Amino acid sequence: MVEDLYPSRITSRPQIIERRDPVVYSEWSPAAPLSREDVEHYRDNGFLVLRDVFDASEIAALQAEAERLRSGRAPLEEETLITEPTSGAVRSVFMLHRQSALFGRLAVDARLARVAQFLLGDEVYLHQSRLNYKPGFEGKDFYWHSDFETWHVEDGMPRMRALSMSVLLTENTPVNGPTMFMNGSHKLYAACVGETPEDHYKQSLKKQEYGVPDHETLARLASGGVAAPCGPPGTVVIFDCNTMHGSNSNITPFPRSNAFFVYNAMSNRLVAPFGPERPRPEFIGARENTSAISPVEGRLVADAA
Amino acid sequence: MVEDLYPSRITSRPQIIERRDPVVYSEWSPAAPLSREDVEHYRDNGFLVLRDVFDASEIAALQAEAERLRSGRAPLEEETLITEPTSGAVRSVFMLHRQSALFGRLAVDARLARVAQFLLGDEVYLHQSRLNYKPGFEGKDFYWHSDFETWHVEDGMPRMRALSMSVLLTENTPVNGPTMFMNGSHKLYAACVGETPEDHYKQSLKKQEYGVPDHETLARLASGGVAAPCGPPGTVVIFDCNTMHGSNSNITPFPRSNAFFVYNAMSNRLVAPFGPERPRPEFIGARENTSAISPVEGRLVADAA
Repeated sequence: MVEDLYPSRITSRPQIIERRDPVVYSEWSPAAPLSREDVEHYRDNGFLVLRDVFDASEIAALQAEAERLRSGRAPLEEETLITEPTSGAVRSVFMLHRQSALFGRLAVDARLARVAQFLLGDEVYLHQSRLNYKPGFEGKDFYWHSDFETWHVEDGMPRMRALSMSVLLTENTPVNGPTMFMNGSHKLYAACVGETPEDHYKQSLKKQEYGVPDHETLARLASGGVAAPCGPPGTVVIFDCNTMHGSNSNITPFPRSNAFFVYNAMSNRLVAPFGPERPRPEFIGARENTSAISPVEGRLVADAA
Repeated sequence: MVEDLYPSRITSRPQIIERRDPVVYSEWSPAAPLSREDVEHYRDNGFLVLRDVFDASEIAALQAEAERLRSGRAPLEEETLITEPTSGAVRSVFMLHRQSALFGRLAVDARLARVAQFLLGDEVYLHQSRLNYKPGFEGKDFYWHSDFETWHVEDGMPRMRALSMSVLLTENTPVNGPTMFMNGSHKLYAACVGETPEDHYKQSLKKQEYGVPDHETLARLASGGVAAPCGPPGTVVIFDCNTMHGSNSNITPFPRSNAFFVYNAMSNRLVAPFGPERPRPEFIGARENTSAISPVEGRLVADAA
């Protein structure tokens, strides 16, 4: 029985406790895959933006593959498709790295995987992956949440030793509903109220109702300000598993799409959920496919010439 | 019978026509209340931002008065209060200039009224005024619209010779759902489909369903980009009556509030509506209280010393 260091959805009153785990698990050295400044920004703010990671032909290939996956032309496991509550349009494709060779290659790319290994100080595997698409005109907002709170309670992730990487496939601008982060919120853990119903994930992927922090907690966590990183396609946004994040709606004609990978430390693999008895399915939180990633060097696509 | 130069909500297919009126009605001279650069920005983009128009004590007085109006302590005409569809919280107080001495004074302040007179090339009166409040955490989005389309069809405003001024009472940041403008969209008129039902205003102030442009039209009007002016309290955002604008939701803890004045040229006073038979009530579109404003010089509040 693993001790529950981050209890949530147990009491009837919200509670804020200190984080009990490091944020950056490695000592910086000149050989690190990030600059010292980048590591400090990540440690202090809970997120980091890397620009110009991929070149134009790599980005074009990823965009074309994303389009193919969303079009219905690719065979996809039905359960991994998440649609908009109202319009029915595809919003997410889960288990992305196992349903697309190109995105599978992206997930193990050294430019991403080595950064994950460094920050988590361990070998890593993919806890979850997905393609996200937020349409123009009618993109809905996504309320504030800490991923770790859900991964801990519903999936049984023991410690804060995981992170997410979002590879932008469209431009993030201030007006098209980019993901927002509360600076420094990863240093505190917001225990939420209420008990999780069984099979909560089927609803929560569309609209979260449990594991939602109250206004007072959010106002406190936002005291360091709210950032909304912007950048062109190919920008990589990295954030800690416990950083409070969310997004406003998007009424602009400009859609927003990204490929999303959650890396977890091998030493932090899932145990029994700390909340409901039954864990969420494999495509949302991996328990079986957890082999350590061997980072692959080189470009994603062959040179055109 | 006044000719309908801007028909809308008549045909079953959307249509885009050229604007048939000037944007700036005066010739610039060094005596103008705006710089030549500001006038050109307004003419080309359909909006303009003025910073540091009011000093700290004026802003503090306006904020305190806004708080008093929203608190329920001030006697307000019930019909002028607009509430959130879900929470019931006060979202707007209409007829602001006639229900608050301080905001009435703000509306005729020379720093605003002279700019309106200059841009519209005429004496001006207040077509509409209101206090807006978009709460934190649950601020809803407001879809794209041209004010003129509604003012023309539902109120009987003949020509494009009106403008709005928003005096920010809270900071506009990229993340708290500021009003967005489509650059240059004021040069085209998007005729919408459908017929307006009677008493449409009772619903449209909460959620617009008629006079809503289609996606294709919006994508075309957004080809010049979408701007979301930000700034501290006291910033004044001016926009043409036909500039396409809207706002995303606001899940941040930071509310957004502004005082909003619509100035119309005396020569452009309302006639019978071009759409429904019955015009909207006086507090939404003035027909009786249309005396020309005499701009008042000086500060809004007496010196503290």
